[in-house]
Amino acid sequence: MDGLLGKEYLKNYIKNVKSIINNYLKNEEEKAKDVGKIPAEAVEHFNNLAAEGKGIRGCLVSLGYEANGGTKMENIYETSTFIEIFHSGVLVHDDFMDRDNKRRGVETLNSIYKKYGEKIKVKTDPLHYGNSMAVSVGDATLYMSWEILLNSNFPPERIIEAGKIYAKYVIRLAHGQVLDITSGAHEDITEKEVLNILWTKSGEYTSLLPLMVGATLVGDIPEKRKKAIENYARCFGWAFQIQDDYLGIFGEEEETRKPITSDLREGKNTLFMFNLRKLGNNEQKAFQSSVLGREDVTKDDVYKMREILRDSGTLNNVLKKGWAYVEEGKKYIGDITDDKNMQNIFESLLVFMMERTK
Amino acid sequence: MDGLLGKEYLKNYIKNVKSIINNYLKNEEEKAKDVGKIPAEAVEHFNNLAAEGKGIRGCLVSLGYEANGGTKMENIYETSTFIEIFHSGVLVHDDFMDRDNKRRGVETLNSIYKKYGEKIKVKTDPLHYGNSMAVSVGDATLYMSWEILLNSNFPPERIIEAGKIYAKYVIRLAHGQVLDITSGAHEDITEKEVLNILWTKSGEYTSLLPLMVGATLVGDIPEKRKKAIENYARCFGWAFQIQDDYLGIFGEEEETRKPITSDLREGKNTLFMFNLRKLGNNEQKAFQSSVLGREDVTKDDVYKMREILRDSGTLNNVLKKGWAYVEEGKKYIGDITDDKNMQNIFESLLVFMMERTK
Repeated sequence: MDGLLGKEYLKNYIKNVKSIINNYLKNEEEKAKDVGKIPAEAVEHFNNLAAEGKGIRGCLVSLGYEANGGTKMENIYETSTFIEIFHSGVLVHDDFMDRDNKRRGVETLNSIYKKYGEKIKVKTDPLHYGNSMAVSVGDATLYMSWEILLNSNFPPERIIEAGKIYAKYVIRLAHGQVLDITSGAHEDITEKEVLNILWTKSGEYTSLLPLMVGATLVGDIPEKRKKAIENYARCFGWAFQIQDDYLGIFGEEEETRKPITSDLREGKNTLFMFNLRKLGNNEQKAFQSSVLGREDVTKDDVYKMREILRDSGTLNNVLKKGWAYVEEGKKYIGDITDDKNMQNIFESLLVFMMERTK
Repeated sequence: MDGLLGKEYLKNYIKNVKSIINNYLKNEEEKAKDVGKIPAEAVEHFNNLAAEGKGIRGCLVSLGYEANGGTKMENIYETSTFIEIFHSGVLVHDDFMDRDNKRRGVETLNSIYKKYGEKIKVKTDPLHYGNSMAVSVGDATLYMSWEILLNSNFPPERIIEAGKIYAKYVIRLAHGQVLDITSGAHEDITEKEVLNILWTKSGEYTSLLPLMVGATLVGDIPEKRKKAIENYARCFGWAFQIQDDYLGIFGEEEETRKPITSDLREGKNTLFMFNLRKLGNNEQKAFQSSVLGREDVTKDDVYKMREILRDSGTLNNVLKKGWAYVEEGKKYIGDITDDKNMQNIFESLLVFMMERTK
């Protein structure tokens, strides 16, 4: 099976939630006007970013819900948007940390407000002003995600159990982020740490968190199914992350809609970078060491890095790992659901994680 | 009535929750070790900050709970710590935005990690690294506050109603922050905006949020009591904020444990600054304009500002407003509770807001 069905499922999900997200944020923008014009504008900027989300996490909330026997699709579409808002909110903080100016093809909030600060001649440093604005807007949107979850149309005790899972994994995500920005900044890092970073700061909250929240909103999850979801999510998360890092260097900017220089400039310790340290020759490793985390990484540096990753066998090695996760993940699907149609979606969506170009 | 009883009530509250907060964060530190050593250390640093909290907000959760007939004091002490953790978490973000190095007598996280970044020779700018760390740690702790609230020992539907109030007011707080850092950065601001900033970014979440959450955890709040709590909270919040801004300029650093230069350097639009623009003469206003938001504000500048605030009548004018709020607030207490002892606590705590020296 290829990733086409998964792609369609995702497309359908996005079609269903697009207006829910937009209506919610339009309403938040109105409410923000009670405080002032500037926060209301900030919500509008955030809406532009949120509108461009890939929808993977929200789609997994709905899939986890269906897999555990849930049938109220309208309710779950509505509720699932909490994770889409959260994800966009976390990206706002992320973009400040990574000093990125573009995300999903739109200008990042730190960049928008840096320019705005220059325009209104803020007394403080416009860069710092832009960063502070991004962090505050991000904070607001993290709490909007809670508002959505708590207002959802499920039994109160289910919402609370879902909320506990949500809180647990975001705390871990933030810890992963702490580790990531520290280790990205120097090279002295163990394999266990690299894997922990990749898993907690991305894979886990991309796959395990939404699947478990969706399933939990239905009711308790039978132990066998729970175990299978955890295993599937682990494979899904790793495949997702490997492809994410692949697209970070090998992707087309028109597709990924972020600069190809960004990951190298931030010195991200991806599985590619980690394996290159093991598989590269001295010359290749010297280039890697000189370019990672450098302020002025150029596109030519990225092209050279692509070549090195190919020549050293690192590219092949890591992509093979990604596909191995896809194969492993398939094995658990039978224990998640008996429904053949649902099984196909689980499988195809997993494959799609490695086939996606954005 | 003076503020002594309120001070004692607060002291007793802190005595009861100190170990709860410490135990919770020690446990979070252990859990963070699963991700890595560095995030676990970050939680430890955060604990040092959280341990020094004044406890005003948590104490109001417990007071609101009792006022609406709640009697399970052990449960409410435990649950009320959510707002103390939240408040400390928000301060971590705040300290990054205000570029402060000291808070509550301990070094701020942005400062700790800036130095750490210098020590481990991060490839990126150590200042940016320190800021990014502070934002990530802050994010983790915001979600810890949710974990505490959702795990609390109250009926699920009560927790959800309390959570909705919590989310609502923090969204407004973040909007207020957005307005504050923008308007602090220039002078073109209306009186309505100044009042909105002061209220949403501080007064509201300091008084109304905790009182309403506490009362809501018991059950629905009778309309008359709700109205009275809202009015009392408004007066409490304003008195708190006026004294906070007073201490920001006139306080003793050994008491407030933050630099007296901080508010002027950040160009904060406090009620004092706003009223000085109306009451000051041209020379005084010229000094104000030159010093607000300046990077290198000195203690002598602060001493001169104190003099100007006194001479122009601004100090007296604003403090009178604070005491007027105290007097107004007292009028609503009878509609919050019939219990004479509780009434005394509500009254004395309100007075204490204007008498406190830290």
